Amino acid sequence: MSQRALSVSRMTGNRSTFAQWYQAVVREADMAEPSPVRGAMVIKPWGYGVWEEMQRDLDRRIKDTGHENAYFPLFIPLSFIAKEAEHVEGFAKEMAVVTHHRLKNIDGKLVPDPEAKLEEPYIVRPTSETIIGDAFSRWIKSHRDLPMLINQWANVVRWEMRPRLFLRTTEFLWQEGHTAHASETEAVEETMKMLEVYRAFSEDTLAVPVISGEKPENERFPGAVATYSIEAMMQDGKALQAGTSHYLGTHFAEAQNIRFQNDAGELAFCHTTSWGLSTRMVGALIMSHGDDDGLRLPPAVAPKQIVIVPMLRDKPEDAQVLEFAESIATALKGARAFDERLRVLVDKRATKSADKRWNWVRRGAPIIVEIGPRDAASGTVTFMRRDVLRDGDKVKSHALPRDEFVAKVPELLAEMQANLFQQAKARLDANIKTDVKTWDALAEYFGAAGEDEDGEFKGWVRAPWCKPTGAELDAIDTKLKTLKLTLRNVPMDQPASFGTCIFTGKPGVEEILISRAY
Amino acid sequence: MSQRALSVSRMTGNRSTFAQWYQAVVREADMAEPSPVRGAMVIKPWGYGVWEEMQRDLDRRIKDTGHENAYFPLFIPLSFIAKEAEHVEGFAKEMAVVTHHRLKNIDGKLVPDPEAKLEEPYIVRPTSETIIGDAFSRWIKSHRDLPMLINQWANVVRWEMRPRLFLRTTEFLWQEGHTAHASETEAVEETMKMLEVYRAFSEDTLAVPVISGEKPENERFPGAVATYSIEAMMQDGKALQAGTSHYLGTHFAEAQNIRFQNDAGELAFCHTTSWGLSTRMVGALIMSHGDDDGLRLPPAVAPKQIVIVPMLRDKPEDAQVLEFAESIATALKGARAFDERLRVLVDKRATKSADKRWNWVRRGAPIIVEIGPRDAASGTVTFMRRDVLRDGDKVKSHALPRDEFVAKVPELLAEMQANLFQQAKARLDANIKTDVKTWDALAEYFGAAGEDEDGEFKGWVRAPWCKPTGAELDAIDTKLKTLKLTLRNVPMDQPASFGTCIFTGKPGVEEILISRAY
Repeated sequence: MSQRALSVSRMTGNRSTFAQWYQAVVREADMAEPSPVRGAMVIKPWGYGVWEEMQRDLDRRIKDTGHENAYFPLFIPLSFIAKEAEHVEGFAKEMAVVTHHRLKNIDGKLVPDPEAKLEEPYIVRPTSETIIGDAFSRWIKSHRDLPMLINQWANVVRWEMRPRLFLRTTEFLWQEGHTAHASETEAVEETMKMLEVYRAFSEDTLAVPVISGEKPENERFPGAVATYSIEAMMQDGKALQAGTSHYLGTHFAEAQNIRFQNDAGELAFCHTTSWGLSTRMVGALIMSHGDDDGLRLPPAVAPKQIVIVPMLRDKPEDAQVLEFAESIATALKGARAFDERLRVLVDKRATKSADKRWNWVRRGAPIIVEIGPRDAASGTVTFMRRDVLRDGDKVKSHALPRDEFVAKVPELLAEMQANLFQQAKARLDANIKTDVKTWDALAEYFGAAGEDEDGEFKGWVRAPWCKPTGAELDAIDTKLKTLKLTLRNVPMDQPASFGTCIFTGKPGVEEILISRAY
Repeated sequence: MSQRALSVSRMTGNRSTFAQWYQAVVREADMAEPSPVRGAMVIKPWGYGVWEEMQRDLDRRIKDTGHENAYFPLFIPLSFIAKEAEHVEGFAKEMAVVTHHRLKNIDGKLVPDPEAKLEEPYIVRPTSETIIGDAFSRWIKSHRDLPMLINQWANVVRWEMRPRLFLRTTEFLWQEGHTAHASETEAVEETMKMLEVYRAFSEDTLAVPVISGEKPENERFPGAVATYSIEAMMQDGKALQAGTSHYLGTHFAEAQNIRFQNDAGELAFCHTTSWGLSTRMVGALIMSHGDDDGLRLPPAVAPKQIVIVPMLRDKPEDAQVLEFAESIATALKGARAFDERLRVLVDKRATKSADKRWNWVRRGAPIIVEIGPRDAASGTVTFMRRDVLRDGDKVKSHALPRDEFVAKVPELLAEMQANLFQQAKARLDANIKTDVKTWDALAEYFGAAGEDEDGEFKGWVRAPWCKPTGAELDAIDTKLKTLKLTLRNVPMDQPASFGTCIFTGKPGVEEILISRAY
């Protein structure tokens, strides 16, 4: 095997290896680790740093579209959850329930105090439609209070029996937008606007290309009239739903009495929306851009965009090396990229410089600079680009005079950002098959059930369907599950006419994406 | 009564009125409101906006001192809490306990599923020493891993029987720093460094003057060797503990096996610290700067520093008014104050402009501009300063030519920030009594128990004491409680010699602050 920074390769086309590779990157890039709390993770500083950069960027986009942040209680009274029937059905199976508010030492053992049992249990929020809807019912009186455009950054809990770091965790971090409008038109417009915000965030900031579209009926958010998603393709060909935007109609408004006095002086129910994007997106980032040397971070969300490793050897030259390293850092800190000051680190840890270099390679720092005595003496900056680390098997390094390097960094980072996007976009575009036209062809393409774990790379299938509903759709969904397949979404851009439905042979009315998924 | 924007005055010297005034400001300034979850609040957009500005500033200070953010689980296994004996004792009485992970519909009623009872209950974190300590025990191997400097922004839950918005809520938001060091010296240095970060944040950013000092033994964090606090004086004379920094010795390290290999190759326990500052600080901000017209926000943390209200009347002049208003906003947005871009809003809501003006007065926006047709025609900016809103009873307005106004705003905001600090500082300095030398004098000054609620304004007493411990201290604490008094802290700056102890008559060894408190 050729030497790579990780012990597991993602590139064998073997899915169980890909899963191991993912775990290795998460661990070796210091992103997160399992915790003693079943299904909950510890997000380590480097992983949290990526999330902070994502938050900063997405928060700006959410505010630029007129929304304000607020904060609502972590706990939700059980009766609130029970109000919206479909919502109960969708969430009731996986919630943390708080039943006591005190511990007591009984016979030397710390236990929930029987005398401190809550009259009504609280649920730890799995999502906040109900508790925010309750506030909306108090805040909204007249059409002048509309639209109500609120966002919350919060932790939520959904019990997970098969957790995977970032992708499926019992507790995760997210933002959840909740809005109320005077009309269906405005609410649907909002739903689509935020879907577009997610697309732009994913593609422009994370360099993760996505397909925006509407989820089929069976994949809707519990209680929604329509659910839209952005779907990204991971390097194993599976789809990952990376953000969702829901038009909720008046369902939640009716359950929670969110009403306004319209122009005519009549009371009417509001039309509401909700939309969310979570730390799951960090998983999408890793599986989109990582390679066999670890993570590759898009510069726009790298906590440190340039890491400078001075090669110190406890010798007199060290002072000059350090001084040169600091001078580069200082010069870079005055420059900007992606409308922010450059984020630069001089890694002075008392560790071997080769270990530091590989640590930053695995973490995916975009530009890694190594400064030795000769560089310092000649004023040369020797650096690696994490997006194109190697030439064949060999690590490729570049050298530029100091001032030229400093001047070039913003352009270089923009080029790397574009490069990562182009690589992922080419993969997505090349792997959506449109020539699979029947169920048998679908089964043949994806292979029989059970082969999933060591099957070779498969992309997505895009095919016409007749948009069945109810029992007919459920039957198709069940059949798809035998191939471990799911319906992803109906892309926004649709052709003018359609072939026959891949499932029923009836005339198609739209095209839908079908694939294995996270 | 003279016309003020609030219906309740804080200035009668009557404490029950002050409490009502506080509630009125929180409500009328749109800061927060009670929620259907007992003791938990909804933080409304304006209140959350203040918290976001506070977070941004404090986060920068925490990072500038070398700390990194990370995120740890919300839930803590019960056995973790049980490990550190004093910690259990201190927190066991007020925690939310998760006992089930699923709901079930039984006889038409949604209840915790008896089959989904957790083997070991989880506690919703009241603070994270134990769960973060668990991670430290895995992360720290050698002296090269030290110091470990971690911060977390999170929600925490401590059951509150007598909640008050921001001041005491069952759920609150905070940051909690957790660090591990190789020696006591370094850990104590860190403890003091973060106390100083809190002091600087409070005084420079919030314009809230504080006294830094060590808490007496009976007020220590459960499990700490030493606890330090910053104490602020509210406008009713009570103290509010606004941030705490703890040196934890090796107590938590021993309970959780946080060890490192030292230079000599031996395993040694780490010395740990923790320090936290919460949304309680928003309450301190309100009670420090609010007046009978509502909140007054220090410009450094005002979500909008300049609010421009165009006086629109559905007339042809409206276009010119709006254009002038926008031109001021655009010009201001290019300028900076407190090292950030100015935060400017043109309030175009379809509400009467007088209502808008008073809404912004109550919310405490630092500069409120009103633009009418005559201003637009003459290029004049008419504005109010929220720090000195009135001249006697009359609202005072100022006028400047547009460009002069724009040029002056950064300086004006800095002046307002300093002005708010000076007012609060003068109040603090003037109300620490040092001439109360005996228990009887203390009782006389503060008045007998029960008079608290309608007693007149009392400040703090600073007096020598003999630093008693154990039962002797407990007796003093109990006696103080009869006067509704508490020991606050021992200020950092101490004189060279001391009078006799106010409680025992023995020789004093340091001076301590005594007062009523939140």
